[in-house]
Amino acid sequence: MTDENRNILVTGGAGYIGSHTVLELLNAGFKVVVIDNLCNAFKGKDSQKPESIIRVEKLTGKQVTFVDCDITNKGALNEIFKNYQFFCVIHFAALKAVGESCTIPLQYYQVNVGGTLNLLEVMKDYNVDKFIYSSSATVYGVPEKLPLTEEMKTGDCTNPYGKTKFMVEEILKDLCQTKKEWSVISLRYFNPVGAHPSGEIGEDPNGIPNNLMPFIAQVSVGKREKLSVYGNDYDTPDGTGVRDYIHIMDLASGHVKALVYQIQKSPKGFQPINLGTGKGLSVLQIIAAYEKASGKKIPYEIVGRRPGDIASSYADASLAKNLLDWVAVKDIDDMCADTWKWQQNNPNGFNKA
Amino acid sequence: MTDENRNILVTGGAGYIGSHTVLELLNAGFKVVVIDNLCNAFKGKDSQKPESIIRVEKLTGKQVTFVDCDITNKGALNEIFKNYQFFCVIHFAALKAVGESCTIPLQYYQVNVGGTLNLLEVMKDYNVDKFIYSSSATVYGVPEKLPLTEEMKTGDCTNPYGKTKFMVEEILKDLCQTKKEWSVISLRYFNPVGAHPSGEIGEDPNGIPNNLMPFIAQVSVGKREKLSVYGNDYDTPDGTGVRDYIHIMDLASGHVKALVYQIQKSPKGFQPINLGTGKGLSVLQIIAAYEKASGKKIPYEIVGRRPGDIASSYADASLAKNLLDWVAVKDIDDMCADTWKWQQNNPNGFNKA
Repeated sequence: MTDENRNILVTGGAGYIGSHTVLELLNAGFKVVVIDNLCNAFKGKDSQKPESIIRVEKLTGKQVTFVDCDITNKGALNEIFKNYQFFCVIHFAALKAVGESCTIPLQYYQVNVGGTLNLLEVMKDYNVDKFIYSSSATVYGVPEKLPLTEEMKTGDCTNPYGKTKFMVEEILKDLCQTKKEWSVISLRYFNPVGAHPSGEIGEDPNGIPNNLMPFIAQVSVGKREKLSVYGNDYDTPDGTGVRDYIHIMDLASGHVKALVYQIQKSPKGFQPINLGTGKGLSVLQIIAAYEKASGKKIPYEIVGRRPGDIASSYADASLAKNLLDWVAVKDIDDMCADTWKWQQNNPNGFNKA
Repeated sequence: MTDENRNILVTGGAGYIGSHTVLELLNAGFKVVVIDNLCNAFKGKDSQKPESIIRVEKLTGKQVTFVDCDITNKGALNEIFKNYQFFCVIHFAALKAVGESCTIPLQYYQVNVGGTLNLLEVMKDYNVDKFIYSSSATVYGVPEKLPLTEEMKTGDCTNPYGKTKFMVEEILKDLCQTKKEWSVISLRYFNPVGAHPSGEIGEDPNGIPNNLMPFIAQVSVGKREKLSVYGNDYDTPDGTGVRDYIHIMDLASGHVKALVYQIQKSPKGFQPINLGTGKGLSVLQIIAAYEKASGKKIPYEIVGRRPGDIASSYADASLAKNLLDWVAVKDIDDMCADTWKWQQNNPNGFNKA
């Protein structure tokens, strides 16, 4: 497939999921414009582009157009749409730390909801009507039953981060009710982990990692002493929380598949789609798999539950298979091996200094 | 009580509920700064202020500071907070037509949610931590049971307008979780009707009225031929929809009571409070009451239900009594008589030309 005439705008394209998706978009022949405010990405002092994007360009041998832009700045968004014609917008730019969202909720709403509204309004002004949204399994709140299917009730999220994802989905539904020509695909991610198999790009969280895998990775290279496991008295096989971990390369390919679906099938309206493997793994299973992949012992201690955490969450991934012809192909061993490779090669993330 | 040192910012203060509240604030001795973008208010070509505010000044013999400002313009909001020190913000500014919200949802989210986020952020920057929010009984969605009490579940709203009110309440809850010094009172209005007894200020809707009472009022002065009654097969005594109509002067005094409560009791956190009479009246009862008050026949026809309309809604108003020492004192005859007076004196609303 050749899509060289198709510009794709990727917001937050310098971040973890964004950069891997940009790589897969380039590999599939798309032209990509990335905007990012670099709040969660490293750019060298003398660089024109963030380090993640520079590495994506090296890995693919292709160029990315990069613009330093904050989605809360509607004027700046307008400039970008004035300069480029886009076929579709893939929207990753957002604040994403659950814990932080409880301490600075206004910023989360301003960026994740307000920023998305800016983007949608500018898209409307420039007649760009294809949108792929970075949603989350967190929109399901506390699951009524498992696996989670797309038609289940959303809302009742337990933290502001989750509420912002839910609110944007509601806004997108209402938008599609009135703008019948729009195609909106809301990809509900389960738990993205891993890195590009080259070890050149991966997750590079600011400060103390919020999520399990980057925390384990930092323990494995001696950056952190030990892992805290939040609760071992959940109603799960080993008592620790169960999640549906998905390899970042599978997640990235899910976005490309969603875009190809928009090109080939011209779907209209709001379509939520789970991106998960359909399998749940416990914290202790992840630790064991990482130890196997790395040959390192991961010291951990069991501590109390975190408020808002649920026991288990995993996807029914059949809709993605049926609509997008997408399935996750990488397993937990791949996820751990690639995280380990990335972490070893980049113990301080993208900032080598 | 003397509060002449207390500046109150009233957003949307030139509108229907805003102008009546400004009048009551002035009568209670507060100093008022009104901001309004005049999207739903009339200003004469040679006037410095909107007509509603000019009349409020005449009725009270006091001055209002007016600034033409849109809450989606954060820079403009910032200027206002730079120029004035506020004790509390009473936030009316919003788009408010349920039907319109289904056709231009993005604008509703941008103004009602995005604009409110701007306002809250600027308040935070200037350490203004008292907020009275213009919420609505619509946040209850389809009532599980009646009367509606404040602790009942909110959400599942049937239109974008209602969703914006719900989302802002969620944002305010999260804000109060982290900013313990804030006092936020969310006044959930039932169905405001009527006008100031002088007939000098009242409801002046743009175009075809969305709500029952202003429509009846326009029929009564011959501006509209007849009223459409949306459904007479609801599970109510006469089959027509039942709502809790509340006189605008009662509603206005509820805001002053909420402000006095903040001054006297220094409450903290998020507090929703219903403002209603606690009594439901049907469409046919309203028609009969208006005919009695005006001596005019109101021709009507029964048409189909409107999507999203519910059968009945009325408040449990006891929390407002307990917390604010507020009760609605005006009855349906007052509501109709004052609407009729306003409509007769101002058949074209504030625009006499």
